[in-house]
Amino acid sequence: MQYRQFFDDALTRLRDERRYRVFADLERDAERFPRATWHHGGDEIDVMVWCSNDYLGMGRHPVVIAAMRTAAQRYGAGAGGTRNISGNSHPVVALEAELADLHGKSAALAFTSGWISNLAGISTIASLLPDALILSDAWNHNSMIEGIRRSGCEKQVFRHNDVDHLEDLLRDAGSDRAKLIVFESLYSMDGDMAPIGRITELARRYGAMTYCDEVHAVGLYGPRGAGIAERDGVMGEVDVLEGTLAKGFGTLGGYIAGDAAVIDAVRSYAPSFIFTTALPPAVAAAATAAVRHLKASGEERARHQARVSDTKLALLRAGIPVMENRSHIVPVFVGDAELCKAASDRLLEKHRIYIQPINYPTVARGTERLRITPTPFHGRAEIAALTEALSEVWQALDLPTTAHDRAIAAE
Amino acid sequence: MQYRQFFDDALTRLRDERRYRVFADLERDAERFPRATWHHGGDEIDVMVWCSNDYLGMGRHPVVIAAMRTAAQRYGAGAGGTRNISGNSHPVVALEAELADLHGKSAALAFTSGWISNLAGISTIASLLPDALILSDAWNHNSMIEGIRRSGCEKQVFRHNDVDHLEDLLRDAGSDRAKLIVFESLYSMDGDMAPIGRITELARRYGAMTYCDEVHAVGLYGPRGAGIAERDGVMGEVDVLEGTLAKGFGTLGGYIAGDAAVIDAVRSYAPSFIFTTALPPAVAAAATAAVRHLKASGEERARHQARVSDTKLALLRAGIPVMENRSHIVPVFVGDAELCKAASDRLLEKHRIYIQPINYPTVARGTERLRITPTPFHGRAEIAALTEALSEVWQALDLPTTAHDRAIAAE
Repeated sequence: MQYRQFFDDALTRLRDERRYRVFADLERDAERFPRATWHHGGDEIDVMVWCSNDYLGMGRHPVVIAAMRTAAQRYGAGAGGTRNISGNSHPVVALEAELADLHGKSAALAFTSGWISNLAGISTIASLLPDALILSDAWNHNSMIEGIRRSGCEKQVFRHNDVDHLEDLLRDAGSDRAKLIVFESLYSMDGDMAPIGRITELARRYGAMTYCDEVHAVGLYGPRGAGIAERDGVMGEVDVLEGTLAKGFGTLGGYIAGDAAVIDAVRSYAPSFIFTTALPPAVAAAATAAVRHLKASGEERARHQARVSDTKLALLRAGIPVMENRSHIVPVFVGDAELCKAASDRLLEKHRIYIQPINYPTVARGTERLRITPTPFHGRAEIAALTEALSEVWQALDLPTTAHDRAIAAE
Repeated sequence: MQYRQFFDDALTRLRDERRYRVFADLERDAERFPRATWHHGGDEIDVMVWCSNDYLGMGRHPVVIAAMRTAAQRYGAGAGGTRNISGNSHPVVALEAELADLHGKSAALAFTSGWISNLAGISTIASLLPDALILSDAWNHNSMIEGIRRSGCEKQVFRHNDVDHLEDLLRDAGSDRAKLIVFESLYSMDGDMAPIGRITELARRYGAMTYCDEVHAVGLYGPRGAGIAERDGVMGEVDVLEGTLAKGFGTLGGYIAGDAAVIDAVRSYAPSFIFTTALPPAVAAAATAAVRHLKASGEERARHQARVSDTKLALLRAGIPVMENRSHIVPVFVGDAELCKAASDRLLEKHRIYIQPINYPTVARGTERLRITPTPFHGRAEIAALTEALSEVWQALDLPTTAHDRAIAAE
């Protein structure tokens, strides 16, 4: 049997649909963030990155780097095992205490990625409830959908951020049934936010548990950087908060925070947690340093919001179709996969600006976009250069100047 | 609804079955490996670790630590995004080239954990084959079983390392059907090895693809540390090799290596890969340093095997029931969950020796054991101290002096 053919065919299908992805070979530079070196055809080209999820630049923060370096010297490069078999380390224990405190919960549990946090968290919590019904926002991230699927529980999808629809489903489910509402606080491709307070109010009224993914918000919102729920004053109402250490906190890994019994049950039952080597002490120490810094300092958040607002304003003034929202995400509408890729390529090759095209399946077909993420390190000059470059690209490729109505995002 | 009760109940069930796990709060010390500090009840206690999966101590190797520190300084603490969205980094690209070369394959793909490598690798490969039948060794690791389950394909389990049974299943499946044989090269709880050459021969004869998990072997076996398949001279016969960076290579992450089309298909189709932040450049650089070092140096492997052999001999002479095998794993039979925990506790509290008890579900009930992993850094004095401590514990707790026949391990 010619097995290779099946894989060649699978790749051809992606190419035919213009969905084949090529990873840019980038070299970050902590001292020149957000600039990077692009390795391309034997050349090293200096580029400006405008699509990093290291939203606040904490990955380059001297305190974070120093924590990683010190811990690597002291503890070594790895954890040496799973949490249960010799891999538990003091820095991971300290990180979890820091995260529990950040969210005002009695416990937290760290994972090697946000994807695994959601897989383990949602699937374990739902499967330990008797005959649970999961109510899931239509735009939830792949990792949440995988967690729901892995739980084996019944799922009902409510229309994106539609609390009336959610209420209908809660009412229909009845008060006797265990219900878990799963949603995000900030949807990263459109930048819109969930009405967390209204969702938790419904949860209380109809007796449901809530699980909220704050990966695109932790570090970035709230007086101590705990996220949108903290900013909105409803963090105590959410049963389980899930976050990442790899975006606002600039390192690697994910976590959940909540009631100690819930967290302990996930720790004890989730195979994806049990059978995985722990985070290296150096990564845990770096993450802890970032969380601690952002608990005390609001400066990065303030500067971040200011630069986001400057960027949106400059682009709108230049007639670039920014898709409106109140967050730090600046999606710019293109609406066509091939044009989106062409715009990205032209930005990189002609203007030395790196912005990854966002196509299906990350967003629905017809809503392809460039997703721009300003950081506190993108200043006036960089924003002006970006605006000029986008204007040139928009003109050259004859791209749309208004954002069409969004289609419902594909799951 | 009182949700908390469900989680309390779940934890009570574990406690009742003596399966509730407590993680020892350990502080590794790169300069004193394998010694560590145990944080216990406010005290800091010096202990000797005898159960680390940092098998060769590469996590403390100066070259590896230096690579991590240098990369952290240069690139920062994190990747900044998924591989597709600004998170691809030059050190990760270099790591993958190093791994492909290690295994003599045309490509490799790095993940944030071995668990995810198997989930993504097996599920994606099997699901891209038409109506695939997966033939799975009965003792396969949880991550492989999760990958099989996630593929949605039909699965048949062959008796552990039983090539006759495997041949029966291959013959019954017929030559027209796509078949994927999934197995490990070294089963970590018993330390026994797969007859890789006989399995690949069957695969060739009956037209099956092969996927071999070498996580407990990479770095440790073969002239360049590529694993058991390399040692046995059959690495070219295995289609896909899966390995870890977190054991023999002392850092974090997992990977698959194989034909470029297969690897590219997993890269392009696996959600657990696509939607996960990339490994930090510093972790990738540290892993690359470890792989490179162990390709060129056989000294660690030779010393490791010598210390394993010394340990086995010393324990057998003292009447400790070592479960026989030809690998670096030294399982010592206890056969009872509570006694196993008691032995581990006594070793730690009285002898300052840390060896985690291995109970159900990691091994089958009735085969509970202590799993000892000597490293090149456990010398004559440490082996003598271990032997003395185990003898004392065996006498005090009246533990069995012969290993019973092994039960079939639970899936």
